[in-house]
Amino acid sequence: MKGQYKPFWLDDSDNLVVLDQRLLPFKEETITITNVKETIEAISNMTVRGAGVIGNIAGFGIYLGAKESKGNISKLAEFAEEIKESRPTAVNLSWAVDRVMRLAYKKRKLNEKDFIEVLKKEAIAIADEDCICSENIAQFGADIIEEIMLSRGLDSFNILTHCNAGWLAIVDSGTALAPIYEAKKRGIKIHVWVDETRPRNQGANLTAWELLKAGIDHTVVVDNVGGHLMQQGMVDMVITGADRVARNGDSANKIGTYLKALSAKDNNIPFYIALPSSSFDFKILNGVEEIPIEVRGEDEVKFMRGIDSSGEVKEFRIMQDSSLALNYGFDVTPARLITGLITERGDCKANIDSIENMFMDLV
Amino acid sequence: MKGQYKPFWLDDSDNLVVLDQRLLPFKEETITITNVKETIEAISNMTVRGAGVIGNIAGFGIYLGAKESKGNISKLAEFAEEIKESRPTAVNLSWAVDRVMRLAYKKRKLNEKDFIEVLKKEAIAIADEDCICSENIAQFGADIIEEIMLSRGLDSFNILTHCNAGWLAIVDSGTALAPIYEAKKRGIKIHVWVDETRPRNQGANLTAWELLKAGIDHTVVVDNVGGHLMQQGMVDMVITGADRVARNGDSANKIGTYLKALSAKDNNIPFYIALPSSSFDFKILNGVEEIPIEVRGEDEVKFMRGIDSSGEVKEFRIMQDSSLALNYGFDVTPARLITGLITERGDCKANIDSIENMFMDLV
Repeated sequence: MKGQYKPFWLDDSDNLVVLDQRLLPFKEETITITNVKETIEAISNMTVRGAGVIGNIAGFGIYLGAKESKGNISKLAEFAEEIKESRPTAVNLSWAVDRVMRLAYKKRKLNEKDFIEVLKKEAIAIADEDCICSENIAQFGADIIEEIMLSRGLDSFNILTHCNAGWLAIVDSGTALAPIYEAKKRGIKIHVWVDETRPRNQGANLTAWELLKAGIDHTVVVDNVGGHLMQQGMVDMVITGADRVARNGDSANKIGTYLKALSAKDNNIPFYIALPSSSFDFKILNGVEEIPIEVRGEDEVKFMRGIDSSGEVKEFRIMQDSSLALNYGFDVTPARLITGLITERGDCKANIDSIENMFMDLV
Repeated sequence: MKGQYKPFWLDDSDNLVVLDQRLLPFKEETITITNVKETIEAISNMTVRGAGVIGNIAGFGIYLGAKESKGNISKLAEFAEEIKESRPTAVNLSWAVDRVMRLAYKKRKLNEKDFIEVLKKEAIAIADEDCICSENIAQFGADIIEEIMLSRGLDSFNILTHCNAGWLAIVDSGTALAPIYEAKKRGIKIHVWVDETRPRNQGANLTAWELLKAGIDHTVVVDNVGGHLMQQGMVDMVITGADRVARNGDSANKIGTYLKALSAKDNNIPFYIALPSSSFDFKILNGVEEIPIEVRGEDEVKFMRGIDSSGEVKEFRIMQDSSLALNYGFDVTPARLITGLITERGDCKANIDSIENMFMDLV
């Protein structure tokens, strides 16, 4: 497989090994996935997460399913449906499953060993293509950063990001974080405001962990702070990833993204969504109205993982159990609030004409 | 003292007893405050919090200071300055200190016992007046709720609130929560979306605790969710309290309020700030530019209080220690995003003319 930074790989027995992202930044542990049930569990309980990586794991899930079903195509088709249902919002998941399944139907006459091998290669190909997307997004995004700096005469640059769209989410430098990594390589003095991203704290836990490892200046803030930072001129650009982008440019991303987009608009700050083209859902014409939003369990709100004074990583209840909690995983940012979409083909406006123009062959 | 619901009272020795709000909802414990140092500590470490209650405690702090200094007015003036510096954003704090000190200067010729007694009565008077404000805000606010329900033909009502502006913050039914308590009394079917309110979770910890005790339907959501709820038509009104409102209507409140106001505006949802007139700072003409915003310690972001599986309440570190965190306590919502201010005199527009017109005698 291509790419230096991946939160998953194949071991010597060709089983899938994934970094358990639920334990970061406290512990770096892996889990080995050998069948479809474990694939679905890892996706739905968020051992792995991030639009791209979910797609990658789902792709490998079909390969594992082919091994499990000994190449039986109708059993594999059942597995494919189950994997697609493991999480509802990220479109890469069904995109990757459909892609590997299309090949499976085409190659179903092969002998079992070759059939499995061909699906494994397709899953690897998806991940490898994500690496190339990520690298392109890095270049196009860093170009935009340089343009903004030039036009405003800045000698340093402050970016705010929400959730995690780094290499833990999209191999191998992410989408939203890719331009940041590239800006650092280009010698730009960059600082990142990291939204904590409740309830699962992927910003504080994953983005801060990635940035620290990469030696990039960053400051964690709670999700409430971004508006004030923007109002006070402390943010030069907002970049987030996306879980699904509609044909009209409306973009589903981690819950809370919409609030940051509103604030960016109110303060004339460029707000960009970075995504590989696999995150588009061209069938959806109006994202705000049509993109399904996942509701997750209330325990993600009521409990939090942390480390106590003895150094043990534990789950703690952080509110009274007798109150209800409601846990939407995503929201949709209307296209009118988005300055542009940064894709592997370059950046385009978040509207139907620009999107269709750039992705004519995929629509 | 007036009022049924107060998070502080005088004990038999006329010392100040306060409910330790840092331990709610897990434990209901009190702390006894006997001198100025303890008063300042209780305010700055947030044993007590909420614009009104901070003012009340500060008022009692002057009374305790008079006992401590044996009625020495110049020592008391020093104490007053120290108390005013204990937290920077809520204006009620300095308002209450100045009010008791004005009386202290007037009555400084009294004998020690009478001097102390007169200051105690003034501190009580401030708290008693807050009870009356709170009751008036309850009535005016509930009237607005009824008007909105009538005009939109609603048979139930969903309010979103941020942080805690209930009786733990302003005796004895709060500001933002007062209309909610009153609506319940009037038989309105009301449901409250409670913003968790990171980093100190006053929504999840205090507002949910108050509402549960009062038998009011509520659901806790993380701070990221409000935008999605409003976009999906699940919120009929937003009400928050305020820590300081400028003459132009710009309102400082708990960090994150600005983001909810933006979202309310974007979705045509009424956004109200409820406050007693003591939260106005008529000297400040432009709130966004001039209201000082408190920066608190980063440990409030990095650590959280929770209850582990053994039932023990503990502090846990919830992110990697080697990343920086920045902790603004408040933000300022520009007046243009505020539908109206609900005060003890009725509601007015958030602009200089309406405010001056309603509070001509105070300006």
